[in-house]
Amino acid sequence: MALNGVQALVFDVFGTVVDWRAGVARDAGAFLARHGHTVDPGEFADAWRARYSPSMETIRSGQRPFTRLDVLHRENLEQVLADFGLDTNGIDPQELSDLNHAWHRLDPWPDAVSGLARLKTRYIIAPLSNGNISLLLNMAKRAGLPWDAILGAEVAQAYKPMPEAYLRTADVLGLAPGQICMVAAHNNDLAAARACGMATAFVLRPHEHGPAQSTDLKPEQDWDVVARDFNELARMLGA
Amino acid sequence: MALNGVQALVFDVFGTVVDWRAGVARDAGAFLARHGHTVDPGEFADAWRARYSPSMETIRSGQRPFTRLDVLHRENLEQVLADFGLDTNGIDPQELSDLNHAWHRLDPWPDAVSGLARLKTRYIIAPLSNGNISLLLNMAKRAGLPWDAILGAEVAQAYKPMPEAYLRTADVLGLAPGQICMVAAHNNDLAAARACGMATAFVLRPHEHGPAQSTDLKPEQDWDVVARDFNELARMLGA
Repeated sequence: MALNGVQALVFDVFGTVVDWRAGVARDAGAFLARHGHTVDPGEFADAWRARYSPSMETIRSGQRPFTRLDVLHRENLEQVLADFGLDTNGIDPQELSDLNHAWHRLDPWPDAVSGLARLKTRYIIAPLSNGNISLLLNMAKRAGLPWDAILGAEVAQAYKPMPEAYLRTADVLGLAPGQICMVAAHNNDLAAARACGMATAFVLRPHEHGPAQSTDLKPEQDWDVVARDFNELARMLGA
Repeated sequence: MALNGVQALVFDVFGTVVDWRAGVARDAGAFLARHGHTVDPGEFADAWRARYSPSMETIRSGQRPFTRLDVLHRENLEQVLADFGLDTNGIDPQELSDLNHAWHRLDPWPDAVSGLARLKTRYIIAPLSNGNISLLLNMAKRAGLPWDAILGAEVAQAYKPMPEAYLRTADVLGLAPGQICMVAAHNNDLAAARACGMATAFVLRPHEHGPAQSTDLKPEQDWDVVARDFNELARMLGA
């Protein structure tokens, strides 16, 4: 067994469990076509996502009180539409709200549901995502992700990679950090989890950013486990 | 359909989903026997539970910051042991901690798992309990309760029947209170939920307090749904 004493696996979600780029591009593409815009949907998804981490910075730094991701996504959406020169004045706010919920309707990578179901037989499994509770819950309900609980930034009231996001998640689980393994496709997420005392599992997702991905194509530290997908992870963890 | 527009069902847990009295008496009985005490285990469970709501009062009133139920249960346990004249000085703290986790190991009523599984096909289902996250998660994992998410006092940072417990739960679900139905075996819980705008479902649990139960033997208001168990509830809600 690769992870002695680990009782819970907590998962990054965007990119690690679900393919955010294809899902957002799908819904953005329909929206853009409806309004006669010729912006490439993948480029639109990338631009929206590019505002993701910067939009949390004011919260991480304490300048802004904790604000859930749905709100940040909506603010970022309006800015991205403006960046592409798309006027939102004539658009029903409900339509923008529905587009904003594209993040609630992301599809899992093909191995995610079966891998999680196997891992669940042996471990507590929960997201430790910057997504808010309703986003993660609606996503799980639609996709069949069998989480034991929905944890993450909104429960911890802190965004990764702040230590509080990891440490408060351990605290609500009633576990020491060393009894928890962070699973992510992102080296920086695992580095932050390791600094808090968690075990680490890297899962390769080479197409998260589309065909020309240049980051996170390999483990950058000696993570406790490295797997090609969730089924391999389950096998390696004896589940 | 009894509940138009309702998308999520939130459940009281102690007494409504699980039989706390039998579960606590089982584990307390083993503890008491091990230490040669002749206290009746059911009486011990009742005494421990009797301190439950009073122990939250200092938190509800704002005199004490939010403190999770595991901590209150442990404080109450030490007081109950003292009330029965049982000296804890010679007892390994780990053994008391394990007894305290009796609340994580409660068995569901016989209809709970099958009823929840049916309800889950049509609704979001989550606990709205005063139990903390790890308590509810460990209970669900052991008993097979198929929650979509673990909500309740620790997420809301407020104990029922404070309005914040219900309203913050609706907020994290991204739903209006009227899109949520509170399910409980306790009239006072439903009254508080209704005052916040939630729909209400009363499920009769006439043996929660043992054979001589005198409270909550009938609906005390015109709740939206009244059912004998979770399978009848599922049938009435079209699930």
